[in-house]
Amino acid sequence: MRVLVLGGDGFCGWPTSLYLSDRGHDITIADNLSRRKIDIELEVDSLTPIRPIGERLHALKEVSGKEIGFVNVDLATEYDRVVALLEELRPDAIVHFAEQRAAPYSMRTEKTKRYTVDNNVRATHNLLTALATTGIEASLVHLGTMGVYGYGWSGSAPIPEGYLTVKVPTPDGELEREILHPANPGSVYHLTKTLDQLMFSFYASNDRLRITDLHQGIVWGTQTEQTIKDERLINRFDYDGDYGTVLNRFLMQAAVGHPLTVHGTGGQTRAFIHIKDTVRCIELAIANPPEAGAKPLVRNQITETHRVLDLAKMIGDMTGTEIAYLPNPRREAEENELCVRNDQFLALGLKPTTLSEGLLEEVHEIASKYKDRADPAKIIARSVWRQGMETSADLLTELPADK
Amino acid sequence: MRVLVLGGDGFCGWPTSLYLSDRGHDITIADNLSRRKIDIELEVDSLTPIRPIGERLHALKEVSGKEIGFVNVDLATEYDRVVALLEELRPDAIVHFAEQRAAPYSMRTEKTKRYTVDNNVRATHNLLTALATTGIEASLVHLGTMGVYGYGWSGSAPIPEGYLTVKVPTPDGELEREILHPANPGSVYHLTKTLDQLMFSFYASNDRLRITDLHQGIVWGTQTEQTIKDERLINRFDYDGDYGTVLNRFLMQAAVGHPLTVHGTGGQTRAFIHIKDTVRCIELAIANPPEAGAKPLVRNQITETHRVLDLAKMIGDMTGTEIAYLPNPRREAEENELCVRNDQFLALGLKPTTLSEGLLEEVHEIASKYKDRADPAKIIARSVWRQGMETSADLLTELPADK
Repeated sequence: MRVLVLGGDGFCGWPTSLYLSDRGHDITIADNLSRRKIDIELEVDSLTPIRPIGERLHALKEVSGKEIGFVNVDLATEYDRVVALLEELRPDAIVHFAEQRAAPYSMRTEKTKRYTVDNNVRATHNLLTALATTGIEASLVHLGTMGVYGYGWSGSAPIPEGYLTVKVPTPDGELEREILHPANPGSVYHLTKTLDQLMFSFYASNDRLRITDLHQGIVWGTQTEQTIKDERLINRFDYDGDYGTVLNRFLMQAAVGHPLTVHGTGGQTRAFIHIKDTVRCIELAIANPPEAGAKPLVRNQITETHRVLDLAKMIGDMTGTEIAYLPNPRREAEENELCVRNDQFLALGLKPTTLSEGLLEEVHEIASKYKDRADPAKIIARSVWRQGMETSADLLTELPADK
Repeated sequence: MRVLVLGGDGFCGWPTSLYLSDRGHDITIADNLSRRKIDIELEVDSLTPIRPIGERLHALKEVSGKEIGFVNVDLATEYDRVVALLEELRPDAIVHFAEQRAAPYSMRTEKTKRYTVDNNVRATHNLLTALATTGIEASLVHLGTMGVYGYGWSGSAPIPEGYLTVKVPTPDGELEREILHPANPGSVYHLTKTLDQLMFSFYASNDRLRITDLHQGIVWGTQTEQTIKDERLINRFDYDGDYGTVLNRFLMQAAVGHPLTVHGTGGQTRAFIHIKDTVRCIELAIANPPEAGAKPLVRNQITETHRVLDLAKMIGDMTGTEIAYLPNPRREAEENELCVRNDQFLALGLKPTTLSEGLLEEVHEIASKYKDRADPAKIIARSVWRQGMETSADLLTELPADK
């Protein structure tokens, strides 16, 4: 298949592009390199030494003989170039990672709130408009988030895959209606994914676009079978308070000798997936699109759920690292239960890569290898959900030399 | 109260500004004059000879002694100027009409689809961000639409005011949950209002903004007690296929001797409100905002429902005008029933101005007075919901001289 990967230079996009290429698909990456530019703005860098996209692609050709195309284009602002690219490429599938993806960054300042909405909404809507107008029949696979559902909304019922059947009272008795699960976004970032969902529903119905929305959990891990083949292909590893995700942050903190930062009680239960499963799920999704005229197909892209504090304790025990309980900069429930349906990907053949000591060790080792690149002043999460919320000072100004 | 009216030069915004000024409020209009510029793009003009905003405000001062401030600013793109205006004015209430408001225009071309989303989403989100960041405690009243609910979704149950109580099955029995009524938008324009709703919910919760969302029906009529005082204060009257609303179009068509254009079977039932009631509802809404911390208050701003064909027949009988059945450029159900709750405004004291021969005659007379300004080539609705849908040719190339 000819696959266009929007946002193919990012944390999920890059390993997905490599994996799909390895599996024989013809890949073109479109990316405006915004993720690298935000690093510059935040004065932080991937813990792993990611190479420029040109060098990445050059290395890929050396290592595997495969070529991946690259176009530097801004999906949110360069509509005409996006249309021209679609017309030229006529892809069979489009994978859409081209959105600002960090909740803390989306809450950081008025500028980042506005950027997140303006970028994400326009990127998605431009793509939908372009597909509707050009009539290109590519199926669209979008990276959404589990965070659209909220936590604890439906009591003991597991979170379904996108749609919920409810009973609506009427004078003539109750009606059963299948609805998009009510939106309960926890940040401006999550909000944009709930806006995406409504746009998908409309364009799937009005223009018969074939859309899959993947409600992904928190990704952990960093390397895949493809990114590990050459150091120049290495995936990014975010450990900072805005872009770092919880499990990778704990593993990095343990590796560099920083206390494990639990914000709040740690009672938050979240859904997780390893990056190796992310790339497999994308392939399953592009191979199994919905029919034209069908509503968007929503698949929960998660493999397991864990309580944040349990993860901290496990890694603390494994590595002998202490836990630091810090003020929570987010507005969220202190504790929640979480049960999520993920039947669809299991039925399509996904074999979940679950949390195991070996895998944790692997990530820990990568973090150890590059620990000299870490800046201790970037570890604490300080983007607050409301002005005036308390945050922690840095716990360490220098990282221990001997860890 | 000090009231900022965003979009205060438009069809609803102008009479609202005049009405609130007449009632003793201190009004500032912010408007980028986009509605007038779209007229230029569509090569059409208001049937009534609206005057430039400067002349309107000058005339108001002459006629009533009242002053209304005016700032030409683009809410979607000039964020810093919006913040400065809010800081300077520190309004008690903000009325937000500043969105592209025509469903056909929103479906006309890829450019107008993109403009509608980019403008409406950014306008609303900029406003929310500005209020959250500045901490200005103005309550926000937004003009939404009945079209967010869709038609026929809940069987015989009347459409509630924004929120619906449903039963959610769980392993421990059914849970009752109050949800935002599921979104069933019929156009990109309506879609943007469903996106607005999700943004309102998030910012009302996260930042304790006080937000009222008015789900308005189709507005008819043109003049109010204030706009009628001087011809220079006259309100706009849209009759073209994109911006004209159904009942006003029928009245105009009858006045100029054009067949009444029923697109489809005319079996569509819609909710209506007279412009005189729109302005009263806005005043009731700003006087009765929700508390900080409450979810957005949704009020259905409608007074009656009618079947499109019934309206055509009534006006046809009243004026001796024939009905022309034309292909429907929209994707919508051919027929629907409609029952809508509007208890809130009735409880607040609204006395509905319902369809009456006198009022219809008044609008018909305004249309007659300015019929020489009508362009018969602008009457047929031709913005199709999907490429290739059939549209009608012009029915008349010249309007009858003697009507």
